[in-house]
Amino acid sequence: MGSFKGHALPGSFFLIAGLWWTGKYSLWYATRRNKNIGSTRLSSRASQRRLEIIEGSVILFFSFVGMLLEQFVANGPRFQLYDFAEKHWEDLMNWQHATMYLFFGLTGTVSLIIHTTEAAPLALDRLMLAISFFNEGFLFMYHLHGRTMLDVHVHLLLLYAVFGQALVAFLEVFHRGNIILELLRCTLTILQGSWFWQIGHVLYPPHGPEWDLKDPSNMMFITMCFSWHLAFAMLVVSVLFCTVNWVVRSRLKRTPPMEMGLLKPRDRDPESEDEIL
Amino acid sequence: MGSFKGHALPGSFFLIAGLWWTGKYSLWYATRRNKNIGSTRLSSRASQRRLEIIEGSVILFFSFVGMLLEQFVANGPRFQLYDFAEKHWEDLMNWQHATMYLFFGLTGTVSLIIHTTEAAPLALDRLMLAISFFNEGFLFMYHLHGRTMLDVHVHLLLLYAVFGQALVAFLEVFHRGNIILELLRCTLTILQGSWFWQIGHVLYPPHGPEWDLKDPSNMMFITMCFSWHLAFAMLVVSVLFCTVNWVVRSRLKRTPPMEMGLLKPRDRDPESEDEIL
Amino acid sequence: MGSFKGHALPGSFFLIAGLWWTGKYSLWYATRRNKNIGSTRLSSRASQRRLEIIEGSVILFFSFVGMLLEQFVANGPRFQLYDFAEKHWEDLMNWQHATMYLFFGLTGTVSLIIHTTEAAPLALDRLMLAISFFNEGFLFMYHLHGRTMLDVHVHLLLLYAVFGQALVAFLEVFHRGNIILELLRCTLTILQGSWFWQIGHVLYPPHGPEWDLKDPSNMMFITMCFSWHLAFAMLVVSVLFCTVNWVVRSRLKRTPPMEMGLLKPRDRDPESEDEIL
Amino acid sequence: MGSFKGHALPGSFFLIAGLWWTGKYSLWYATRRNKNIGSTRLSSRASQRRLEIIEGSVILFFSFVGMLLEQFVANGPRFQLYDFAEKHWEDLMNWQHATMYLFFGLTGTVSLIIHTTEAAPLALDRLMLAISFFNEGFLFMYHLHGRTMLDVHVHLLLLYAVFGQALVAFLEVFHRGNIILELLRCTLTILQGSWFWQIGHVLYPPHGPEWDLKDPSNMMFITMCFSWHLAFAMLVVSVLFCTVNWVVRSRLKRTPPMEMGLLKPRDRDPESEDEIL
Repeated sequence: MGSFKGHALPGSFFLIAGLWWTGKYSLWYATRRNKNIGSTRLSSRASQRRLEIIEGSVILFFSFVGMLLEQFVANGPRFQLYDFAEKHWEDLMNWQHATMYLFFGLTGTVSLIIHTTEAAPLALDRLMLAISFFNEGFLFMYHLHGRTMLDVHVHLLLLYAVFGQALVAFLEVFHRGNIILELLRCTLTILQGSWFWQIGHVLYPPHGPEWDLKDPSNMMFITMCFSWHLAFAMLVVSVLFCTVNWVVRSRLKRTPPMEMGLLKPRDRDPESEDEIL
Repeated sequence: MGSFKGHALPGSFFLIAGLWWTGKYSLWYATRRNKNIGSTRLSSRASQRRLEIIEGSVILFFSFVGMLLEQFVANGPRFQLYDFAEKHWEDLMNWQHATMYLFFGLTGTVSLIIHTTEAAPLALDRLMLAISFFNEGFLFMYHLHGRTMLDVHVHLLLLYAVFGQALVAFLEVFHRGNIILELLRCTLTILQGSWFWQIGHVLYPPHGPEWDLKDPSNMMFITMCFSWHLAFAMLVVSVLFCTVNWVVRSRLKRTPPMEMGLLKPRDRDPESEDEIL
Repeated sequence: MGSFKGHALPGSFFLIAGLWWTGKYSLWYATRRNKNIGSTRLSSRASQRRLEIIEGSVILFFSFVGMLLEQFVANGPRFQLYDFAEKHWEDLMNWQHATMYLFFGLTGTVSLIIHTTEAAPLALDRLMLAISFFNEGFLFMYHLHGRTMLDVHVHLLLLYAVFGQALVAFLEVFHRGNIILELLRCTLTILQGSWFWQIGHVLYPPHGPEWDLKDPSNMMFITMCFSWHLAFAMLVVSVLFCTVNWVVRSRLKRTPPMEMGLLKPRDRDPESEDEIL
Repeated sequence: MGSFKGHALPGSFFLIAGLWWTGKYSLWYATRRNKNIGSTRLSSRASQRRLEIIEGSVILFFSFVGMLLEQFVANGPRFQLYDFAEKHWEDLMNWQHATMYLFFGLTGTVSLIIHTTEAAPLALDRLMLAISFFNEGFLFMYHLHGRTMLDVHVHLLLLYAVFGQALVAFLEVFHRGNIILELLRCTLTILQGSWFWQIGHVLYPPHGPEWDLKDPSNMMFITMCFSWHLAFAMLVVSVLFCTVNWVVRSRLKRTPPMEMGLLKPRDRDPESEDEIL
């Protein structure tokens, strides 16, 4: 998958996932904070559960597509793991990427099971997410052997975002619904997405000149560039967070919650799954 | 102990331990969640304590057997540590493995003491487990010097599982009874067990051709293979967890708890030791 | 910015920041502890918020000045990043330092937004601080390549303080208002400040002889010197903390809180923002 | 201080400190658990405070003595840091050791201040202890450069105990009075003490033959030996803990607390400082 597209595709997935999560968690945070003015109309517990189920299905679907793509693209292994005739492993890169998708697929499956049945504890979805990100970083870490300096460096920088996501998701097992951790994870997801695009541009520039992969000053620039991507990701998350909060509050103010009195207290209590933990 | 059997044996122990723990914690979790329909018939506090005592005895017994085996197998040191005639240490490998068993034996002993007397705080069993796993990883880490690349790599991968178990057990000191951590530890235990089998197959293939221990593509495959073992371990734990939960619930539904009214509330309160912390 | 001044300037900033924070947190701690004798006169919630706004503005202002200085000093890049004529990056050092200031500027901005509006959760300012320090350490870590031994070593020692600050600030996200963590962060900030001065003196001695940057015994001395700076920072923080506590208590004792009876309990309740979390 | 005595001395201090702490924390734990049968006679809050003050003074005294010894032994620097005539640092080893003692002296001072006045928060003594151990490990880490393999290795193993102590003491800032953490710290302290003796025996054997400092099998043995020291330390702590608990309980049973009825509830409430946090 050593190509510009091969990096732009997962990059786009992570960008979209980061934006989606930012919107979702911002909405739920706004809902929780504005309970007294009837915010539960915007995001009831049932609608939250529906959102989670849709999210799980989408993740499962795209992981499945990703796995198939890795197996059947031009030079894919087509489910053949070992070439017994020539005695070598077939396209280990593709198999490794397919393994990464497999774990994200498992995350989607677990999320689906948790939110459609009562079989498993809620926090399991965060643990699975942490394991998936850890597995991604783990596999990336061990397939950099023997590449050129800058190639190794851009992938090492990626690991900061990936292992950061794994750590934050693991902390969320114990601090579920903590908006700080949720936004931090969103930031790191967007960072990972935009950094995949950057890697594609550095290693396989679609237009313009090649990068000198052995120049130390390129390495210094790329390090700083990672900081800029982080600043950019923080900016995007902040703007989205503030917009969602502002929209929720202004919509609530326009339409006073007249029907509130009709609800029994019992019905309104556990609006979010996070709170019933 | 450099042989196929020498890896398959501890592998089998850890596999069985992982399955046993998964069943135990799943049963207790199901019991805790279905209290209102009389689940305490299936697992009372006394029966939990009995289980722990049996588990501690079994661990102690097998650790003892393991220590003796390491001392008295074909080339064992038979409790001789230093050969003063030829001035060298006797079979350090066997002594190191015996030391690992020693720590697991101590864990079993502590568990026995905690659950038969009131002498020590409950959380001590998790601390001892964490120390045992840490000690195992610590000794493995320092006996890889000078081996071939793939040999070192498969043992390094083992360390992820071992130190992971140590960390999770240490976290359980503070979060006892957290089902997420318990299942994670079970998963890592099964992973360690199945990985021991894999190491045996790679270094001492019982049938089929030898592995080239210096081929980088073998190293890449083995890394990915570790991920697959992890996915397999997660699958096994999930299936066992769901089965136990389903069985508990269906058994409870068939036989309504008629005798519940006869129990005084005081008797039913602390069903599990975890809750009285 | 390789000059004595280039290290003394940020050093002074961090020294002042450390002293300021020590004073601030000591005052608030004294206020909280002496509530019953009317300490809220000295530091009400409104005055705390005003302090935070001033602090945010000052940080924002100096970060902005720092960025401009890095761009427009004698050899600065003047916002030119790449020299297309000679095909090399322009003054990457200055750009890296400007990036560090950028993150501290963002921290100031976030702090301002949090304390003037209700848009975002309070703990976000600590997260931003943690990210800023992490970013500083991250950039320092990757620009030591190819320097002489002692040069690398003094900067590595700096990283202990910087990453320590990042970690403590991150812990404060979950333990806001914990005086132990706050004082630890103050200590590390003063340590960073005084260590910047030390680096300046070692690499660019303003008077006296040059240091031999390759002498191992110099390296040993510098390591120990870092410990002394830490001890010095702890001393400064302790003295300041005790002085503030003593002043608060003696002032409160001189002027009995006669007007206390006039306040309704409701008005006095949430004196500090930390407590209303 | 490269001599057998130079390692046996600090080793003895740490051994005594470990035993003392084990006894202290076991007594307080037994006191807390047996409140209902009048254990407060054995260890009231005032007596706990007195113990802490004595402990602080003793630590301060021996740290002071240690510092003086390091300065004035046979080849000590006698407070001369730099030899301007021959342009080299004077006895950096002794200065480094003196710096370690300085930090432990500061810990004793802080402990004294905390327990005699109300000036500072209680948890500060654990933070200072964590910093002292961290500082010890930090200085050891950077003075191993250029030594022989086994010399480096035995000191590296020491760092496991030292940094372990630092970590546990830091965790105690947040979990004060947690008996598990306290006993773990005691174990690591005894481990450090006995390991100092081991280092002395390996590097400067007082009788018997020299060790071959370059033999890899010696390194393997020493690693395992560290595990045995850990097992030994755990044994010592367990035996002491159980003995203290047994003595407390049997003494309480012999003399029923007849005077209990005379105490007002208010007087008996905060028996330990840990509980009033």
